Amino acid sequence: MDISQLRINEDRFRADFELLSEIGATPAGGITRLALSNDDLAARAWFSRQLEKLGLAVRDDDAGNLSGVLLAANPNARTLMVGSHLDSVPDGGKYDGAIGVLGALECVRTIMDAGIDLPVHLEVIDFTDEEGCWQSLFGSKGLTGQLEPLALVDKDGRDNGPFRAALYRAGIMPNQIHKAARKPETLAGYLELHIEQGPRLWEQGGQIGVVTGIVGRTTYQVTFVGEPGHSGTTTPNYRHDALIGASDFILEGHRYVREVEPEGIFNCGRIEVYPGAFNVIPARSVLVMECRHPDETVLTRMESDLIKLAEESAARHRLGMTYKRVTHMPAARMSERVMQAIEIGCQRISANGCTRLVSYAGHDAQMMSSFTPSGMIFVPSVNGISHNPREFTEWHDVIAGVNVLLHAILELALGSEPSLNGHKRRKKK
Amino acid sequence: MDISQLRINEDRFRADFELLSEIGATPAGGITRLALSNDDLAARAWFSRQLEKLGLAVRDDDAGNLSGVLLAANPNARTLMVGSHLDSVPDGGKYDGAIGVLGALECVRTIMDAGIDLPVHLEVIDFTDEEGCWQSLFGSKGLTGQLEPLALVDKDGRDNGPFRAALYRAGIMPNQIHKAARKPETLAGYLELHIEQGPRLWEQGGQIGVVTGIVGRTTYQVTFVGEPGHSGTTTPNYRHDALIGASDFILEGHRYVREVEPEGIFNCGRIEVYPGAFNVIPARSVLVMECRHPDETVLTRMESDLIKLAEESAARHRLGMTYKRVTHMPAARMSERVMQAIEIGCQRISANGCTRLVSYAGHDAQMMSSFTPSGMIFVPSVNGISHNPREFTEWHDVIAGVNVLLHAILELALGSEPSLNGHKRRKKK
Repeated sequence: MDISQLRINEDRFRADFELLSEIGATPAGGITRLALSNDDLAARAWFSRQLEKLGLAVRDDDAGNLSGVLLAANPNARTLMVGSHLDSVPDGGKYDGAIGVLGALECVRTIMDAGIDLPVHLEVIDFTDEEGCWQSLFGSKGLTGQLEPLALVDKDGRDNGPFRAALYRAGIMPNQIHKAARKPETLAGYLELHIEQGPRLWEQGGQIGVVTGIVGRTTYQVTFVGEPGHSGTTTPNYRHDALIGASDFILEGHRYVREVEPEGIFNCGRIEVYPGAFNVIPARSVLVMECRHPDETVLTRMESDLIKLAEESAARHRLGMTYKRVTHMPAARMSERVMQAIEIGCQRISANGCTRLVSYAGHDAQMMSSFTPSGMIFVPSVNGISHNPREFTEWHDVIAGVNVLLHAILELALGSEPSLNGHKRRKKK
Repeated sequence: MDISQLRINEDRFRADFELLSEIGATPAGGITRLALSNDDLAARAWFSRQLEKLGLAVRDDDAGNLSGVLLAANPNARTLMVGSHLDSVPDGGKYDGAIGVLGALECVRTIMDAGIDLPVHLEVIDFTDEEGCWQSLFGSKGLTGQLEPLALVDKDGRDNGPFRAALYRAGIMPNQIHKAARKPETLAGYLELHIEQGPRLWEQGGQIGVVTGIVGRTTYQVTFVGEPGHSGTTTPNYRHDALIGASDFILEGHRYVREVEPEGIFNCGRIEVYPGAFNVIPARSVLVMECRHPDETVLTRMESDLIKLAEESAARHRLGMTYKRVTHMPAARMSERVMQAIEIGCQRISANGCTRLVSYAGHDAQMMSSFTPSGMIFVPSVNGISHNPREFTEWHDVIAGVNVLLHAILELALGSEPSLNGHKRRKKK
């Protein structure tokens, strides 16, 4: 057979997609499958049954990552991982994560049906809690050795009780999660198909995006400190209004990113004002600022520039200011070899456009890329809408994405990389 | 006796103040006597015993206003009311409200001790819930006929259950509160002693403030409407960030008041952002804006100017905007006759300064002034601090305030007003 003509079974893939979309379906037409919730566990159970039906070796690691492995003839072969996540945000879309896991499953089936023996183990994986209902990228952090046993209370003094209970309920031991760590030398690479979640491909009319890197992200808690006072009787020179400082900073932060770092992202999605009475001058306003940039060096500079702007806003309004860095996900670069494999896949299926682009959203590939050569395939999100029941990707684009995934797998497994050579073909069953 | 030499009994007044300050005392040295709470009810019980000890006619009206009346010889005489409130904000100060009620009580005692018969009934009153734990100026609204029976659910669909329960517990029937209404022709006037709660008298070194009017107050709920979106993947032309619009408006509103209406007040003490996740673009931000101005006409203009600014901020950031007027307390003018009586009181006791000024805080006198000739005496708040355990007024200023109250009562009751003439003096007991 001419391997380049191989295509997935569209009907079988569509049937899977429709079955999975019923688990956690919401009235608005979206999905609520919060990590470790009943619906997430139901989706995992369903996925597990599909893996078993195929006769794959099913594994469920100490961080709850669920996978099925198509074993190579050589037990010492390395493992090529392909997957994404089955969990969702509240009332999110059907495509986010799901097409990556189902696509990987369909590729394995197609390869098995074609009777192709790969010189690598091929592992289809659903990562735990990508969305961060409990902890962003929990599963891929665990697999890449970045989790520590989950204590009763975290280092900021927050009670981990509910998270621990959710883990126990899913059969995951909070004090064993570090044991999910794999050895990088056992892996051959990682591939992930995902919707773009932004409008760039859709606006350009491009069908396939080849992700070059994933933005680094940091969040800070920034607190402006004023003084409470009676809103009516406090004369202007006695007013120290913490919300004015925060408002000034929010506008300045957006102006800065627009004018100075147009490739960067600044978001303030949350603000709380204390004491919060209509007739009391705000004494404290606490906001969460999020920064993103594809280049880690620029990200660091952005962060210090923004903190300086917050200090200046506070000073302008005679306020105090404190801040704390809460999270940091470093910027990630995808593997050139994997990007090329994806581009070969695009050529093989004559995809309607193949564009290199940066991902402004976080993905499990962000963790995997520091561990093993990784790459991501994006398909267009109509109007760029995601994390929303109206999330939608044209079906022919989804199918193109899965076929590109198939050929990227084949190229990585059977292509020119010496260590992966030596495959043989066997007859189709 | 020379009535102008009459002074209150400072020791007796101080003892009252110290006893009352123990009810609802907080660790920070303040007071928590939320309206209708156990501590408020305890303060009312204590006050009621003092009224009974004096042999006054105690009354407890359908809105829970508690008063004692020194009856005039003529049962058809009109009633001069003097008082304030015993309730407090959470962890507020000892002086706010309390010195007005205790001062009125002490004035009655002093008048009784001096054997002065007044041609008016003199009524010492504690108004229910001045601070608005449940509903601002509840008692004085009731007395002036501005309350309707309290329904199970208010006109905005909010459940009145907890408020109704609190009323029942205090012996007030929610469906009878409108019966607290008095007839204005039965009243001779209203006098209230209060701390200023702002820094003007204290900064000027003035001892007595003669209130000319009380600012009008309105509150609006202003909602900026954007669109939720993934903070990382939404390109700038798709961002509709509701918090940017709100921030812009907050800065513009403060700028407007500073530059255009420096006698006005604009406060935004509360803001909520939805959905409120650090990585989601704010889809909706809801803020409460409060406007105050001493002149009702200017207040109305301020409100429409500010709403226009909110509309402009929304338009600038491609957002929708909706608003709703939530409360309105019209600006009130104090009676010239009562102001003059207070000024005569200042002369009699040789007060250290007597300044006419506007009140930027709401008071029961605001309701009473539309009903009967009313006036307020302010004493200085050190550093302008109020609604705070650090609220403080120099004791000699408090005493001066109560003595001015005494002479304002005497001047109004015995002075030149024809209908109040014809009093006689009787021998001191």
